[in-house]
Amino acid sequence: MAVLYVAVVGAGDAADGSPEVEAAEAVGWALATAGAVVVCGGLGGVMAAAARGAAAAGGTSIGLLPGTDRAAGNQWLSLAIPTGLGEARNALVVRAADAMVAIGGGYGTLAEIALALRADMPVIGLDTWDLARGGKRDSGIVTADGAPEAVAIALRLAGGEALDLR
Amino acid sequence: MAVLYVAVVGAGDAADGSPEVEAAEAVGWALATAGAVVVCGGLGGVMAAAARGAAAAGGTSIGLLPGTDRAAGNQWLSLAIPTGLGEARNALVVRAADAMVAIGGGYGTLAEIALALRADMPVIGLDTWDLARGGKRDSGIVTADGAPEAVAIALRLAGGEALDLR
Amino acid sequence: MAVLYVAVVGAGDAADGSPEVEAAEAVGWALATAGAVVVCGGLGGVMAAAARGAAAAGGTSIGLLPGTDRAAGNQWLSLAIPTGLGEARNALVVRAADAMVAIGGGYGTLAEIALALRADMPVIGLDTWDLARGGKRDSGIVTADGAPEAVAIALRLAGGEALDLR
Amino acid sequence: MAVLYVAVVGAGDAADGSPEVEAAEAVGWALATAGAVVVCGGLGGVMAAAARGAAAAGGTSIGLLPGTDRAAGNQWLSLAIPTGLGEARNALVVRAADAMVAIGGGYGTLAEIALALRADMPVIGLDTWDLARGGKRDSGIVTADGAPEAVAIALRLAGGEALDLR
Repeated sequence: MAVLYVAVVGAGDAADGSPEVEAAEAVGWALATAGAVVVCGGLGGVMAAAARGAAAAGGTSIGLLPGTDRAAGNQWLSLAIPTGLGEARNALVVRAADAMVAIGGGYGTLAEIALALRADMPVIGLDTWDLARGGKRDSGIVTADGAPEAVAIALRLAGGEALDLR
Repeated sequence: MAVLYVAVVGAGDAADGSPEVEAAEAVGWALATAGAVVVCGGLGGVMAAAARGAAAAGGTSIGLLPGTDRAAGNQWLSLAIPTGLGEARNALVVRAADAMVAIGGGYGTLAEIALALRADMPVIGLDTWDLARGGKRDSGIVTADGAPEAVAIALRLAGGEALDLR
Repeated sequence: MAVLYVAVVGAGDAADGSPEVEAAEAVGWALATAGAVVVCGGLGGVMAAAARGAAAAGGTSIGLLPGTDRAAGNQWLSLAIPTGLGEARNALVVRAADAMVAIGGGYGTLAEIALALRADMPVIGLDTWDLARGGKRDSGIVTADGAPEAVAIALRLAGGEALDLR
Repeated sequence: MAVLYVAVVGAGDAADGSPEVEAAEAVGWALATAGAVVVCGGLGGVMAAAARGAAAAGGTSIGLLPGTDRAAGNQWLSLAIPTGLGEARNALVVRAADAMVAIGGGYGTLAEIALALRADMPVIGLDTWDLARGGKRDSGIVTADGAPEAVAIALRLAGGEALDLR
C-alpha cells in the first residue's frame, strides 16, 4: 500500500506544555508509528510538536515554510522546504496531504481546514473551529476525542475508507 | 486618495435570481460607483454578479482565475487574469484587496475569509459563515444588513478608518 | 475580437533615458494604441516605462507585484496587484499574457522568457538574451528591430496568426 | 553541519540510456552518497534518474510535482509532493535548494536555471544551455565535466565556499 501523508495544522505560537502542543506531539508520534508522513507548515507551536512526535517515533516529517529561509524550520523536521509563498503555502500543505488533523488554531489554521474541505479531503478536528452557515452547524470537520482517535480516523479516511463510527 | 480594491467573494454556483447573486450585483455596483476596484475570482455566480454590477456602474473589475484559460472568465470583467494556481489563487484574491465582502459561500469562500482575517484585512459578511472556537463566537467577520451597508463599512475600513457603528 | 494581453518584461533597474527604457515606453504606447492590455511586473525600469507608455496612450496596464505592498507599484499602472509570491510571480506575468516583448533584462527576465517559451507563447526580443544549446542557437525568441516592429509581431502572433515576415 | 539540498533539473522526456539520464543518475547517486538531499520536479527523464540514483545510494530525494496527483511522481522518490502550481512549481524547486545541477534540458530547465541565478544560487551545468547578452557570453552557469565534478562543485558552492578550481 502507498504511504499516506497526513497534515497536522494548528497555531504556530501554541506554548510548550499546552494541551494543543501535547496533542500535536501525540498525533505526530502516532502517525509516524503507523508509517505515515507528517506534513506541516514547518514553524513552531503545533507544527514543531507534530514534527517532534514524528521524530520520536523514528518517522518522517516535512515542513513547508512560508518564507525563503530554511533555518526558520523547526529542528525536528526530516525535511524543511522554504517556499517563499507566504500564506499561499497553506494551499501547498493541503495539497501535499491525504488527510488533515487540525488542533486548535487561529485564522491560518482555518484557511487550511477550509481548503482541505474544499478539496474533499478528510479533516479531523481536536478542539478546533466550529463552522456554521445560516444557523446550521457544518459537518465537514470530523470531531475526535484525543490524539489516538484522531489519528485512527485520519488514517482510515486517508486510505479512502468510508467513516462508519460505531 | 488612492483607489481602494475590494474583494467580493462567494459561491461560484449561486443561481441567477438568488439572494446572493442579487446582493453581489448590488455590492459590485455600489463599489464601482464609489470608485473602488472590484476584485474577484473571475468565475460565475457571486463573482460574475459582482463584475456585472461594477460594469453597470461603469467601473473596473478584475478576475483572478484559478485555471490557465482566460476564456473561463465571466463576460463582465474589465480584466481577466488566468493564474494557473488552482485554489491557491484564493490567496491572491485576498492579497490584491484592501477589504473583503463575503456573500454566502462554501468552503472556498471560507478559505478566502480566513486568509483575509489572518492578514488583518476587514471582512464584511452578508449571510455568510459563522465562526466559533471553544464555544465562543469569533468576532472577526463584521456582519452587515444588506449590500449598501456592507459597501459603506468596507470602504470605511479599507481606508484605514476605525469602525465605530452608531 | 477579444482584447489581447501582452507582457512587457525587462530589467527593473534600467535607467531613465537608457535605450531599454525608451524602447519599453514606445512598446507600451504602441500596445495601448492598438487596444492591447500591457501586463508587467509592476516595478521600475522597463516595467514602469511600459506602463508610462500605455498611460500616455490612454490605455490599460496591470502590474503583478512580487511583494505584498501595493505602494511598491509604479505610478503609471492602471491596476497594481500585490501577489506576495516573490519571484514565483514571474509565472503569473507569463500566464496573464498572450504574447511577450522582452527588452534587455537580467536573469528574472530570462526566467520569464523561458516560461513563456515553455508555454508556447510568442516571445519577441529587443536586445535581449541569446540562447543556445549544444553549440546551436535556439530560435525560440523572435528578434525585432525596434519597438514598432516588436509590437506588430507580438500583436500578430498573439492573435494566433502564424508569423510570415516578408 | 546542516544537510545540503541540491536540485537536479533537466528534461522530463530524456530517454533511458541517454547521456542526460546516465549523468542524472550518477549525480543523484553522488549527492546522496555525500549526504545531500536531492530536490527535483518529481516526474520522468532526468528527474526520475536523479531520484533513482539517490535511492541506489540509500539517500533521500523529494519531488515537487506540478499537478495535484501524487501518483504522477516517479517511483524512486522518497517523498512526492503535489503542488498544483503548474510551471510555477519551478520556483519552488529553486527555493527548496542550496545549489542546482542542470543537465541538458529544455525551456522549463532554462526557467529553473534563470530563477536560481536570479537568487544568487550556484548553478552547475552539464551540457546545458549557453547564455549570452549583447554578444557576450554570460558566466552565471559553472560548467562541469561529468557528474562527479558537477557534484563536487555543487557541494562546495552550496556550502558557501567560494569556487577556486585548481
